[in-house]
Amino acid sequence: ADPLASWRDQFVIPDPSVVYLDGNSLGRTPRRTIHRIHEVLSDEWATDLIRSWGHWIDLPQRVGDQLAPLIGAEPGEVAVHDSTTVNLYQLVHGAAALRPDRGVLAIDEHDFPSDRYVVDGIAGATGRTVRHGFDRLDDVAVVVRSVVDYRTAEVVDVAAEQARADAAGALVVWDLSHAAGVLAIRLRDAGARLAVGCTYKFLNGGPGSPAFTFVAEELQGTIGQPIWGWFSQRDQFAMGPTYEPRDDIARMLIGTPSILALTGAECGISLSADAGIEAIAAKARALTGYGIELCDHFGLVTCTPRDAARRGGHVSVVHPDARALTAALIERNVIHDFREPDIVRLGMSPLTTRFVDVHDGITTLAGLIA
Amino acid sequence: ADPLASWRDQFVIPDPSVVYLDGNSLGRTPRRTIHRIHEVLSDEWATDLIRSWGHWIDLPQRVGDQLAPLIGAEPGEVAVHDSTTVNLYQLVHGAAALRPDRGVLAIDEHDFPSDRYVVDGIAGATGRTVRHGFDRLDDVAVVVRSVVDYRTAEVVDVAAEQARADAAGALVVWDLSHAAGVLAIRLRDAGARLAVGCTYKFLNGGPGSPAFTFVAEELQGTIGQPIWGWFSQRDQFAMGPTYEPRDDIARMLIGTPSILALTGAECGISLSADAGIEAIAAKARALTGYGIELCDHFGLVTCTPRDAARRGGHVSVVHPDARALTAALIERNVIHDFREPDIVRLGMSPLTTRFVDVHDGITTLAGLIA
Repeated sequence: ADPLASWRDQFVIPDPSVVYLDGNSLGRTPRRTIHRIHEVLSDEWATDLIRSWGHWIDLPQRVGDQLAPLIGAEPGEVAVHDSTTVNLYQLVHGAAALRPDRGVLAIDEHDFPSDRYVVDGIAGATGRTVRHGFDRLDDVAVVVRSVVDYRTAEVVDVAAEQARADAAGALVVWDLSHAAGVLAIRLRDAGARLAVGCTYKFLNGGPGSPAFTFVAEELQGTIGQPIWGWFSQRDQFAMGPTYEPRDDIARMLIGTPSILALTGAECGISLSADAGIEAIAAKARALTGYGIELCDHFGLVTCTPRDAARRGGHVSVVHPDARALTAALIERNVIHDFREPDIVRLGMSPLTTRFVDVHDGITTLAGLIA
Repeated sequence: ADPLASWRDQFVIPDPSVVYLDGNSLGRTPRRTIHRIHEVLSDEWATDLIRSWGHWIDLPQRVGDQLAPLIGAEPGEVAVHDSTTVNLYQLVHGAAALRPDRGVLAIDEHDFPSDRYVVDGIAGATGRTVRHGFDRLDDVAVVVRSVVDYRTAEVVDVAAEQARADAAGALVVWDLSHAAGVLAIRLRDAGARLAVGCTYKFLNGGPGSPAFTFVAEELQGTIGQPIWGWFSQRDQFAMGPTYEPRDDIARMLIGTPSILALTGAECGISLSADAGIEAIAAKARALTGYGIELCDHFGLVTCTPRDAARRGGHVSVVHPDARALTAALIERNVIHDFREPDIVRLGMSPLTTRFVDVHDGITTLAGLIA
């Protein structure tokens, strides 16, 4: 009954006995990535040498255009480049400069560490303070917020929170790292204008594949960013005396991007685009729903929301011995991860995770606990 | 008589009729890169999945250690990560913060565009001014300077200029992009403490392969950097509440690095390390010397220094029709590049360029001019 079941064949799976529930940390290897990387190495780099830059030069934008429909953005609004941390740094800096008279940056105190550290660093450098929480926004320059909580999988209501920030005059930079490729995010429909995210989790882009930046078209000519490099320069190869940033999404680019890394991102993203984000999101809800059902059956405690519309692509089991359970579970070939202080995190990646994986993983965990 | 001649066999060269004189923009493809990338894709990513991060996690430092002897640094002083532009941004920011009472950043007005733009951006953001030139340094916080001029190939006397800056109390961030892998740079011996550079030129790391950052051991506990990410956090997976940067070279890391991109850098760097930088630099001097000899023979004008100790790995021919000549030369299968306003730039990469390539390239150019 799983309409996406055959997509697993698009991935390299050398050992089918491994129960892989960590596609939310590192997605599996698409077959097309191995094929395409070899082409890029042999036919493009080795054969056409420097001339390949003729078609590599706008790869960050082209891969961004492939990603755009998966997050509800328009073509020309997304670029794939650098890392989530660098891209977040750029956007928070740029957004804060649009609210020069506001002295607060707001972020959840439990948001992903890199996000918190970036915000702390920018606050220190620009003389702002950091507020943990979003109750009051009328003095906030920029809100930084993950759409999916990396611990509990809880999903924020993007449209409602964006509207609340808009009403208070605060800008929001959304982090889609745990949302892209597993939820049918509709950034434009929700009124979002700035976002970053990662391509190596549910988008299967490969280890450390480049991140993405979304800037809504209407902000592209306005927002600045602090790292002025030649890839965002208007006439890049004129090498002119002064920096004149492009007024499209390429103004977020920095230095020369890795073509191997971008190719991995492109292949992973293209699979999700081909499968369709609505079908992917439906399967994520079904997988996580089944996971919660199994937790209930075995009496395991989960902190993941029971409302399917309010959860991302993983189920988190809470247990005081979570760290030891994680080690024991991995020994039994159920690959997943532990999150401080007491979470056994089980990721369900719609293109590669089977219902039997969810069954086997949670049954094994329940056996260990018993 | 060329002791490095056989190293060309370590590279994939599908069409030997191509005269490739652009290894200073994009080095050729090492055979070991194709082999190793396939291993990483199939045996590490696809097979070991997330568990591969056990040995990937310190790859930026391990590749840095391989690179260190090529630039005269010690193990633990180099990390390979992000792009030259990002790394330069970090170091200039960090260095400027160590000279809070100095209001000037100094850079040559003809230095590489990305370097100039980065400096302009930081000056604007930190209320400093930019001075073009290095005559006066007693009010300068940071000097940014390329060791090899990307247009003329002229080499700066690093030890002399570093000593002059030290005497004036200015910090220097060296850009080794056109020097690493072709000159026997001795950073420590020259007293240099901060540098960045690129791995996709003479180091053959692949298109857009990650850059490197050098911070001398004695500055590693002192210098800060503005982009606070989880890869520079002391206890990365504790995901603690506050940012506490490591006090080794990893404090320059930012977000999750691309393992494919790093693997390409590793393979390219390892070839230069195996061949030995003294032999590489000797061949570079011989190739460029032969190129200048041919220019003289045909009456071509070059702006590249005749003193072998004062030039990098390319020969630049100056001609009012340089742009048209470049196009015509490429049509004749001599691949190289044009630099504004009047330079035909001919790169000579010691591990792959043959003397016959220099002969054929410059003879063809002379024929076109005639």
